[in-house]
Amino acid sequence: MTTFPDFSSFDVLLASAAAMPAFDADAAEAARARQMELTKPPRALGRLEDLAEFMAGWRGDARPVIAKAQALVFAGNHGVCAQGVNPFPQEVTVQMVANFQSGGAAINQLCRVAGAELGVVAIELDRPTADISETAAMSADECLSAMRQGAEAVDADADVLILGEMGIGNSTIAAALALGAFGGEAADWAGRGTGSDAEGVSLKAQVIAKAVALHGGLPALEQLAALGGREQAAICGAVLAARAHRIPVILDGYICTAAAAPLFKADPELLAHCLVGHRSAEPGHRKLLEAMDQAPILDFEMALGEGSGAALALNILRAALECHNGMATFAEAAVSGA
Amino acid sequence: MTTFPDFSSFDVLLASAAAMPAFDADAAEAARARQMELTKPPRALGRLEDLAEFMAGWRGDARPVIAKAQALVFAGNHGVCAQGVNPFPQEVTVQMVANFQSGGAAINQLCRVAGAELGVVAIELDRPTADISETAAMSADECLSAMRQGAEAVDADADVLILGEMGIGNSTIAAALALGAFGGEAADWAGRGTGSDAEGVSLKAQVIAKAVALHGGLPALEQLAALGGREQAAICGAVLAARAHRIPVILDGYICTAAAAPLFKADPELLAHCLVGHRSAEPGHRKLLEAMDQAPILDFEMALGEGSGAALALNILRAALECHNGMATFAEAAVSGA
Repeated sequence: MTTFPDFSSFDVLLASAAAMPAFDADAAEAARARQMELTKPPRALGRLEDLAEFMAGWRGDARPVIAKAQALVFAGNHGVCAQGVNPFPQEVTVQMVANFQSGGAAINQLCRVAGAELGVVAIELDRPTADISETAAMSADECLSAMRQGAEAVDADADVLILGEMGIGNSTIAAALALGAFGGEAADWAGRGTGSDAEGVSLKAQVIAKAVALHGGLPALEQLAALGGREQAAICGAVLAARAHRIPVILDGYICTAAAAPLFKADPELLAHCLVGHRSAEPGHRKLLEAMDQAPILDFEMALGEGSGAALALNILRAALECHNGMATFAEAAVSGA
Repeated sequence: MTTFPDFSSFDVLLASAAAMPAFDADAAEAARARQMELTKPPRALGRLEDLAEFMAGWRGDARPVIAKAQALVFAGNHGVCAQGVNPFPQEVTVQMVANFQSGGAAINQLCRVAGAELGVVAIELDRPTADISETAAMSADECLSAMRQGAEAVDADADVLILGEMGIGNSTIAAALALGAFGGEAADWAGRGTGSDAEGVSLKAQVIAKAVALHGGLPALEQLAALGGREQAAICGAVLAARAHRIPVILDGYICTAAAAPLFKADPELLAHCLVGHRSAEPGHRKLLEAMDQAPILDFEMALGEGSGAALALNILRAALECHNGMATFAEAAVSGA
């Protein structure tokens, strides 16, 4: 069996992660060979063919299926809201979690359409992390605990995992993680988030510049603890657990991608089983996707979070596999080649 | 009731088309107002919100649903194949129609995933149109007959219509229609189609330049008859019939969009109820979409035809309406505003 990552310390975690399963090039090659036999010109299904190969390699199966799709939305609260970086009150986090649980949010509808089972994991919403512009958001133990909660929420039987987040103030956290991981100007990473005006964006840039000046030199996972939040740590834990089970992951937009940035900084290979569902309307996402060498599946001017763009992209992944598995070959259909 | 377009002559057809239903701005406005009340920041669902408004306006319903999605693939054969513009033999058209009918093609899988009922209309495959580089492809009566067949295939009960095509040689027909409608250089519109090499593309450009030199000055629908094919005429007929029934249409890629170009040239308003499912890998499609003021839903490097990109986009349209109709409002979910 695969080795579950060990969350007892950051160093132990990275050592255990290095031993996790790799892409199965033989299964991917067999999938590619099948694509060449299907009743279509070579490459006529474009990126749908790439997605089928990707799934084949990570599932270790030349004819991979999605019998079970799991979606997980992690929620947390953030001490940095004390800096006035967000126009919404912090109680919206718990209100939106209730909305997820009662089925009224966008992610509920998008999971129903795409056939994903939604799980919501709210992590200590009544205990926001510390203000990153003043001190470290979390201790190493708090961060590892949230990572473990993320990992434990992953269903080993899933064939694909959709990840999303909710947390008032977490577009500031995302911008801080991106600035911490990839540098550049604070203003490059700070966007409007949920309804900030130009003044709000400027304040956000100042706050993240201060936070990164305070914590920027740390190793990748220590930086996650210092600049991140519980839902970001949980996303990292879920990404690693999915990898242990050979489950491909679809990350959502800017905040979800930034949450995984510390793993990329630790070792880009830790995200090799991850796709990004869409390019967010948040301007920092384009730059972040380039830094993390990710081509998003969709580009739809969305900026909601909750896993919404990832769940939407699941429809495309399902279509890719239905074509891959369901189409006739030239021989089966007696269609003439060129 | 709506007026079915009258296919007795091109002039009568355009006169009857001018009386067809218009966009219901009140229904669209009511849909927009609902979007502002749903539990998400304004515009956070990006183009999904636009799609919900578009559907509301065309269906005349602030809460539009897709109870029935129809997909139609029209097939025809082309005399221009005598010029050697295509590496595949012409019998592939009938073989692929059989593949559609037995469920083995990409479009079958994509319709199943997206919940569309597929109909295949093969139009006189044993009687290819005339060679456009020598003479008019069809007489006006032949063209009107194919348009009528396209219109009659449309189910008045459908809530959305997916259109696609199959016809060996029809990427040459598409390039000729685009050059005829929008001018420019022949080489701008001629792409690789199904497996042409650089020499094949160059030959294709010469052939369409010759065809448009012969027929280019004609009015829009006369040009459809001279440069088009039966499946292109059927697509135009189906587009008009859908409009008569207030059914929004999703056009597929380059060939399907080019098929509708004569309607755009006759009056851009005739395509106001049409979306384009994806941007094809055929280089001419980008230019054509710009000329026809269309922003494609997906961009996936696909170049298959059959309605494949349109059917894939139907998943996105369904997701847009599920969010629009299924999400809770701020009041219903007791979520605080900014």
